[in-house]
Amino acid sequence: MKQPLEGIKVIDFSRVLAGPYCTMLLADMGAEVIKIERPEFGDDTRHFGPFQNGESGYFMFLNRGKKSIEMNLKDPSDYENLMELIKEADVIVENFRPGVMEGLGLNYETLKEVNKGIIYCSISGFGQYGPLKKRPAYDLVAQAMGGIASITGHPNNPPTRSGASLGDMSAALYAAYGVMVALFHRERTGVGQTIDVAMVDSIFSLLEHNVMRYTSEGTIPERIGSRHPISAPFDVYESKEGYVVIATANDSLFARLCKVMDKEELLKDVRFATDIERGKNESELKVIIEEWLQGYTAEEAVELINNAGVPSSTILNIAEISESDHVKEREMLLEMEHPVAGKTRIPGNPVKLSKTPVQITSPSPALGEHNDMMQQKFKAK
Amino acid sequence: MKQPLEGIKVIDFSRVLAGPYCTMLLADMGAEVIKIERPEFGDDTRHFGPFQNGESGYFMFLNRGKKSIEMNLKDPSDYENLMELIKEADVIVENFRPGVMEGLGLNYETLKEVNKGIIYCSISGFGQYGPLKKRPAYDLVAQAMGGIASITGHPNNPPTRSGASLGDMSAALYAAYGVMVALFHRERTGVGQTIDVAMVDSIFSLLEHNVMRYTSEGTIPERIGSRHPISAPFDVYESKEGYVVIATANDSLFARLCKVMDKEELLKDVRFATDIERGKNESELKVIIEEWLQGYTAEEAVELINNAGVPSSTILNIAEISESDHVKEREMLLEMEHPVAGKTRIPGNPVKLSKTPVQITSPSPALGEHNDMMQQKFKAK
Repeated sequence: MKQPLEGIKVIDFSRVLAGPYCTMLLADMGAEVIKIERPEFGDDTRHFGPFQNGESGYFMFLNRGKKSIEMNLKDPSDYENLMELIKEADVIVENFRPGVMEGLGLNYETLKEVNKGIIYCSISGFGQYGPLKKRPAYDLVAQAMGGIASITGHPNNPPTRSGASLGDMSAALYAAYGVMVALFHRERTGVGQTIDVAMVDSIFSLLEHNVMRYTSEGTIPERIGSRHPISAPFDVYESKEGYVVIATANDSLFARLCKVMDKEELLKDVRFATDIERGKNESELKVIIEEWLQGYTAEEAVELINNAGVPSSTILNIAEISESDHVKEREMLLEMEHPVAGKTRIPGNPVKLSKTPVQITSPSPALGEHNDMMQQKFKAK
Repeated sequence: MKQPLEGIKVIDFSRVLAGPYCTMLLADMGAEVIKIERPEFGDDTRHFGPFQNGESGYFMFLNRGKKSIEMNLKDPSDYENLMELIKEADVIVENFRPGVMEGLGLNYETLKEVNKGIIYCSISGFGQYGPLKKRPAYDLVAQAMGGIASITGHPNNPPTRSGASLGDMSAALYAAYGVMVALFHRERTGVGQTIDVAMVDSIFSLLEHNVMRYTSEGTIPERIGSRHPISAPFDVYESKEGYVVIATANDSLFARLCKVMDKEELLKDVRFATDIERGKNESELKVIIEEWLQGYTAEEAVELINNAGVPSSTILNIAEISESDHVKEREMLLEMEHPVAGKTRIPGNPVKLSKTPVQITSPSPALGEHNDMMQQKFKAK
């Protein structure tokens, strides 16, 4: 079956996470992604753990279905070969610090002389323009400066980084959407262009209504743990063994929960009579719920609560969600055979297209695996 | 200037956050997005705070540049008019619970009889197929079940929801990328299809290398606060006034930091001699750094540390990032004139396209603002 991006060639200068995840999203849909890697060393993540038979799981996941060519970008003959590749390319993706590509003679103005319709996507910490453009990018810094750390965590604790690299991942997602918009536009008009995505801007964009709370009514959102800003009980609660999420945003769900807990007297308690009152007295309500939960494990409590029609779930760790029937049926972990690592499992793609489903045609490449293929191509010219 | 998605018509059945953010990303690029809203009540978020002159900031942000038509989907004449719209549409977006659209006679199989090439995108909590598809979706549940809550927060605290609705926002981003891939494919082949995106799958996809730690080497990642899993000092630290991020992942940066702190004796301390050792003894190192930070405000400390070439930043709250020069220069907050709210500021789009920049052509629509326009259209037929 033909994949949607078949025939689209991406020259990928990116390293580590944000750029490689963006080009992974393109490769998953059938684009030919050619990684340009530093000779002998390659993408930094080839040396990052976790390892399986000495092969980096970090690298294998992000680079499935891509090709690898080693090139010394400062070597004139490699540069010449690279220009041959770029002539035939559709998209460039890079995530160096602003200025580095220009220093290598690989900025947009140079490349569009070789390929007028090229789409040139840059991902960086703070963008290609703006007062902070020269600053180095770390996910921790993007989460700190983009505003999300200030609203993540519990009230008496410090601002908290998300356990996942949201700065990189969100920038990659915005960039993939941007590349697709630019490709669609080029398909209709023939016109190429640059795309500039910053990690800090991407984090800021994830904040959703929190920004509007500030701009519409002057409130500065704060850390409130896992609770709902208004409704209660709508939070993470501790059971005898493990944590439980309970999500009741209206009176009828609360009545059902009281019945499950055999505490229907709460319905007559003025502190808990309405959602607004429950929200105001949520810490007292939490004590009562957690007392009840001491009689159950998380799994037992969730079953009781769900059976009463109240939304509730356990909190899955990475092993539990990975081994769940849900992930299995939704193919969110894919088995891949890697020549060094052997059988490995890598995250699937969450976008389920009915006519052109994601096909991962090859594992991540060995460093320079496609050097020969390219050499033959250059000789043939 | 022609926008990239000019001429693309989106019929938008979605409500609240994930669906509307997805169609906002399409409207920003020039698609005509027509919201189908419940008569008199409309999208739930019209009634959500924050409010500005009685107008919902939540709604204004997500629905800029869209049109609004009131329709009772159970009324035969409205249904007939809707089919006229769908005949001319390119994309359908909906985020009802699986089964609801079918109950309304609006499933893909029905609509493709009217419009063969339609692209039909569904966003839900657990997907259109799979063992959990009928469960109601809440962002809190998606974050709990998708694995990210288990790795967010401090070691002695409960699993923590991110302060932003990552389940909705990531699903919206994956869906926008999916719609663009499907539009590109249709442009080349004429073939439409369905797109199925689940919030839990989207959260799972954000976990990046955390999943590989489990599948490659059997480790179950845990909550480690804001610190780096290996390197130190690389964390959030408390100063005399405010918190500071310091990110030093190698020996030479650490030497510079020690110089700034006037504590060069640490370089000879076996506990801190290498990055690996510092990582193992990070809590002792944190005490030393926070002692030093007690002499400075966060701003003062960051200036000293940055001047020494060590990456560091303050942690910006929503007001600080919103009012920053960075956000101003990058146009990450846009001024919009709304007929009811007046002058308001809404988040911009982080994807900066050079030839076809995002243009927001109108504020969010009043409920049913475009009823008449559509009525005239139907009469003309």
